[in-house]
Amino acid sequence: MKWDAWGDPARAKPLSEDIKGLLAAALGVTGDDASQLTADQVVLRPSALPDEDLKALAAIVGPSQVSTADADRLPRAGGKSTPDLLRRKSREPQDAPDAVVLPAGEEEVAAVLALCAERRIAVVPFGGGTSVVGGVDPIRAGFTAVISLDLRRFDRLHTLDEVSGEAVLGAGLTGPQAEELLAARGYELGHYPQSFRYATIGGFAATRSSGQDSAGYGRFDEMVRGLRVVTPVGTLDLGRAPASAAGPDLRELFLGSEGVFGVITAVRLRVHPLPAVRAYEAWSFPDFATGAAALRAVEQQGTGPTVMRLSDETETAVNLAMTDKIGGAQVTGGCLAVTVFEGTAEQVAARHELTRVALLAAGGTSLGEEPARAWEHGRFDAPYLRDSLLAAGALCETLETATGWAQLEELKTAVTQTLTAALQESGSASLVMCHISHVYPTGASLYFTVVAAQQGDPIEQWAVVKRAVCDTIVANGGTITHHHAIGADHRPWMDQEIGELGVRILRAVKDTVDPAGILNPGKLIP
Amino acid sequence: MKWDAWGDPARAKPLSEDIKGLLAAALGVTGDDASQLTADQVVLRPSALPDEDLKALAAIVGPSQVSTADADRLPRAGGKSTPDLLRRKSREPQDAPDAVVLPAGEEEVAAVLALCAERRIAVVPFGGGTSVVGGVDPIRAGFTAVISLDLRRFDRLHTLDEVSGEAVLGAGLTGPQAEELLAARGYELGHYPQSFRYATIGGFAATRSSGQDSAGYGRFDEMVRGLRVVTPVGTLDLGRAPASAAGPDLRELFLGSEGVFGVITAVRLRVHPLPAVRAYEAWSFPDFATGAAALRAVEQQGTGPTVMRLSDETETAVNLAMTDKIGGAQVTGGCLAVTVFEGTAEQVAARHELTRVALLAAGGTSLGEEPARAWEHGRFDAPYLRDSLLAAGALCETLETATGWAQLEELKTAVTQTLTAALQESGSASLVMCHISHVYPTGASLYFTVVAAQQGDPIEQWAVVKRAVCDTIVANGGTITHHHAIGADHRPWMDQEIGELGVRILRAVKDTVDPAGILNPGKLIP
Repeated sequence: MKWDAWGDPARAKPLSEDIKGLLAAALGVTGDDASQLTADQVVLRPSALPDEDLKALAAIVGPSQVSTADADRLPRAGGKSTPDLLRRKSREPQDAPDAVVLPAGEEEVAAVLALCAERRIAVVPFGGGTSVVGGVDPIRAGFTAVISLDLRRFDRLHTLDEVSGEAVLGAGLTGPQAEELLAARGYELGHYPQSFRYATIGGFAATRSSGQDSAGYGRFDEMVRGLRVVTPVGTLDLGRAPASAAGPDLRELFLGSEGVFGVITAVRLRVHPLPAVRAYEAWSFPDFATGAAALRAVEQQGTGPTVMRLSDETETAVNLAMTDKIGGAQVTGGCLAVTVFEGTAEQVAARHELTRVALLAAGGTSLGEEPARAWEHGRFDAPYLRDSLLAAGALCETLETATGWAQLEELKTAVTQTLTAALQESGSASLVMCHISHVYPTGASLYFTVVAAQQGDPIEQWAVVKRAVCDTIVANGGTITHHHAIGADHRPWMDQEIGELGVRILRAVKDTVDPAGILNPGKLIP
Repeated sequence: MKWDAWGDPARAKPLSEDIKGLLAAALGVTGDDASQLTADQVVLRPSALPDEDLKALAAIVGPSQVSTADADRLPRAGGKSTPDLLRRKSREPQDAPDAVVLPAGEEEVAAVLALCAERRIAVVPFGGGTSVVGGVDPIRAGFTAVISLDLRRFDRLHTLDEVSGEAVLGAGLTGPQAEELLAARGYELGHYPQSFRYATIGGFAATRSSGQDSAGYGRFDEMVRGLRVVTPVGTLDLGRAPASAAGPDLRELFLGSEGVFGVITAVRLRVHPLPAVRAYEAWSFPDFATGAAALRAVEQQGTGPTVMRLSDETETAVNLAMTDKIGGAQVTGGCLAVTVFEGTAEQVAARHELTRVALLAAGGTSLGEEPARAWEHGRFDAPYLRDSLLAAGALCETLETATGWAQLEELKTAVTQTLTAALQESGSASLVMCHISHVYPTGASLYFTVVAAQQGDPIEQWAVVKRAVCDTIVANGGTITHHHAIGADHRPWMDQEIGELGVRILRAVKDTVDPAGILNPGKLIP
């Protein structure tokens, strides 16, 4: 993962002529690629970790598994939000963790946490570093130092129970590593968020990730059968049965806990046999409301698509769902929807047919396979495009929420208006695009992509817009985040999300499992 | 609901000649109906509530909504486990709440809790009183007095959102009341546990109930979109969206909280249109392992039955699944399975056909509709039979657990052996029967029905057996309860279920929301 951009440099996506034309026409952005810093031009604040503590950490994990080198600290200096990437361009001294520690095994994690509690060192659990909400920011918060606790050595498929359809996976496995280990045994997890190539099993659990196949295989939290969590006061092994009435479900306290309650070391997950067959069909709907009602009908009937998404008119007009065609000739008018079906041949045929009937009845027109395959082909590539947009002087960011079906249209309108007005206020026209990518019987997510022109300090420009849009989301009954998590960025809205008493409950849990408060300070809990 | 037995006296089920024959032959139980106490023969301990407190409560809820009369205290003296019913037969002074209070509205609940915290009065939230784990026992626990807080006046359908498929229901609505209000609008919740006729919406949430249609509509906790909870320190309104990544899911702390964290006053639930069509098919499998593998195949493929259950050989031999045929001519050899399908005509046809194919492939033989309809006809009647069995000198009780598919057979064998051996030790032969009634992709529940002869003090006889079988369940990796909850009876096993640190987390939450500890003392948290 690049330190100042998304992913693999070899996959970088320069702006096509189509996109350049769109930027110039819609937003007046005509900038060329700005000059980039190289990693060795970046100045990091020197490590504040006392030598004695460094030695003590080395005694736990081994000298080769702890580092204060800039080359190790820089890639763990933050996540991958647009403000993160903009901050990474600064020639001023940048924040970074004071050391990177790579434990192997729960005993080493427990020993590191005990040491850090004693010596007042903050600990940021680190998986793939793909947070877009400041979830891995190295916030010192009054502690002596802050370390990045990298879980990459928790990289095993511990067990696969083919009868129960459960696998225990190490928290440090990335999406592709996990799927490769399972595929070798004929199984699949089926969790494909946009961060798939880099994010980890532990990170998916700690942030309640949701993948593009959520219609078929559920959100990540729905796949979790058990969790092992090392806290500063002891280790938890949660989840004894597929379902239980033995009181509150404590797994649900650690799912979404974002490293503030403990370090997730292993996750027991529902897995399924690799699908034998996959079918694709894209659809066009005259407008977003009609398309949303169609998706709702499918989901409430339970006809079983694996993927189901709907782009709004603006997203459809610029072909945003098909990364390679963005800004080119419009593939369809109205609103594009994508469906994918997986399973045995019989299942796929039955699910596809029932879904077709429902979508046709709801006013859809089939576009055949090709646009759905084009979506799948480029589905992990959008973040690369953002890097090129930022370099060209555009501001590009995403945000998301969810609400009930009955409230969806109103929330979408309110968010779009706020984004447009706030960017206008900052001096820029904007392109606000939206899609539904996760559906539930009672509601759906809304995922917004915003492109504007950078004006003044783009970090401050976006901060103003982001505050306005978060206020709009909570005022309109949406959740402050459907799958990006809270981190540092959404923390000011947690009081409204769960109420003041809800926050007090989180604090009480925090005080119990992390009495010294060393775990990921400044995140999640206001 | 009768004070000393299940349900409606008019539905009492005297033992048939077939059942009497079975009891005599298998267990040597030949007793006649023992003499029964009438309600006015029961001696309750006098109310310990000081007059001043009674007046203060009356000032909050109104004088007509608070009572210390024995006629009101007796029906709230406990739940409906076999030990409960046996205790109710005692001519010694019996425990009961010191008063019954019926608040209307959250403000009255909050005021009652504030008063009770101040005056050191314990509060037992009370719904239908159908707990079989001591969940509503009037435990004083060092407080001045204990009151039963009856929620029956929370009896409204607050809202029905037909687009999102969500309804907000008052916590005090019983199963039939809730379904009647929804049916009038064309909707259904679809939650049918055996306690359906008496248990309440709030009770279902507080105990993580699971209904017989769970294969189709999910457990009760899976239906919950939002909760309103009044605690002694404030009111929570949880659940903003169909899904969220805004940190831990606090709904999951209050689902299963059994009245120890707060009083659930309203629940927002997923509902579905009343099914247009219902199809039934019963099946026979040569043995339990084959039947369990068949159910597993169906559930892991997701073919969509609404109900799916499998009786083991012993249950099948006595026709336990068909209440009116128990002890009569054996309906089928091997193991009986029941499937029911609901939905539109197209859905039912598709789901039924896919399920048939899977069950046939797994070694099932169709028995047609009739045994499945017979199961449905008697599905809420088994508790009535227990009353007659107890009166005849038999010991009859149920218990349940859940585990992964791979561990199911071993757990079933271990529990059966422990039950048989422990009852043998007590001096009685026994009939141990088991069925699977709730299936998940990764595992299933096991529900045991035990019949033996009463020996000595049957309460003590069962207590010894129950301890042994709970130890066996946790030692073999099962959950201590799949849907009966913890209450007072399973509390000693909570340490093993969630670990010592898990228990500390529950205590920390308890101290935050109920600092005086007045809410349902002696339940859930060890």
